[in-house]
Amino acid sequence: MRSLPLSKVYQLLEPGPVVLLTTTRRGRANVMTMSWHMMVEFEPPQLACVVSNANYSFAALRASRECVIAIPPAGLAEKVVQVGNSSGRTVDKFQAFGLTSLPAECVAPPLVAECFANLECKVTDTRLVNPYNIFILEVVKAWVDPAQKRAKTIHHQGYGSFVVDGRTIKLKSKMR
Amino acid sequence: MRSLPLSKVYQLLEPGPVVLLTTTRRGRANVMTMSWHMMVEFEPPQLACVVSNANYSFAALRASRECVIAIPPAGLAEKVVQVGNSSGRTVDKFQAFGLTSLPAECVAPPLVAECFANLECKVTDTRLVNPYNIFILEVVKAWVDPAQKRAKTIHHQGYGSFVVDGRTIKLKSKMR
Repeated sequence: MRSLPLSKVYQLLEPGPVVLLTTTRRGRANVMTMSWHMMVEFEPPQLACVVSNANYSFAALRASRECVIAIPPAGLAEKVVQVGNSSGRTVDKFQAFGLTSLPAECVAPPLVAECFANLECKVTDTRLVNPYNIFILEVVKAWVDPAQKRAKTIHHQGYGSFVVDGRTIKLKSKMR
Repeated sequence: MRSLPLSKVYQLLEPGPVVLLTTTRRGRANVMTMSWHMMVEFEPPQLACVVSNANYSFAALRASRECVIAIPPAGLAEKVVQVGNSSGRTVDKFQAFGLTSLPAECVAPPLVAECFANLECKVTDTRLVNPYNIFILEVVKAWVDPAQKRAKTIHHQGYGSFVVDGRTIKLKSKMR
């Protein structure tokens, strides 16, 4: 994994890919699938995400205030769904689905080696957890896999239907 | 436009498309381009979005507490960028870029006729506006254009680069 400038993080998340979220609780790593996230600030990169209090990851995220957001390439779609269909309460998902954890630099939860980008995050605000299960995160370290350039991502349309990235168009934009 | 059950709204927004957001201020409609949004609840559908206080739409959204989120098909990408590159302070964007406004049913801001889906929204929580420019919205009425079935959307990767929806894959999922 190669370090990515934090100013570029929004370019990974703004398109709305399905991501994996890793947490650690009592020394045990877990991973869940997540689609409800958005950027909140460019730099330092802040984002918001919804982790339901019905998810096993919820307590770990709230207590440890750390996570890694890993962005899977389209080829990982089946494993992403397996991760989403199971719970860390009963399964070691890394082992069950053949995902490889790598140590992060700034947080306890692991990176996911098979993902083309990994974002180490700290929870910076939990005031929105109670009404909406919304966590505010700051990305403190970002990694990309140089061997997976131009990786295509998947976007969830509900009930196991995913749209895969197609062609890219470039337009003259003042938008960052 | 045909009415869409509110239970299906998340399927439109969860993939993370670039959307248009219309507001009305002193009887004048405006439209902006937005990528920072996420679902928060399935039904009634709630979402969060970031509208910067640097945007002309900010004051209208905060004061009127109403908007329409319109989802443009990929063919509208150039106009979407033109909307994003200009400000309602100085331009009537509907007129300047040839967008057609249609009256909404439950809110004052208009639908955008060229978009394949239009979501009438009420602002339900502004407590997050001050720290993060985050608005919580509830979708109160949803419309889809039956003539634009299977519309492809665009996703912003920064600096005018957009990825267009490609193929769809179906996997056995318990995820809603």
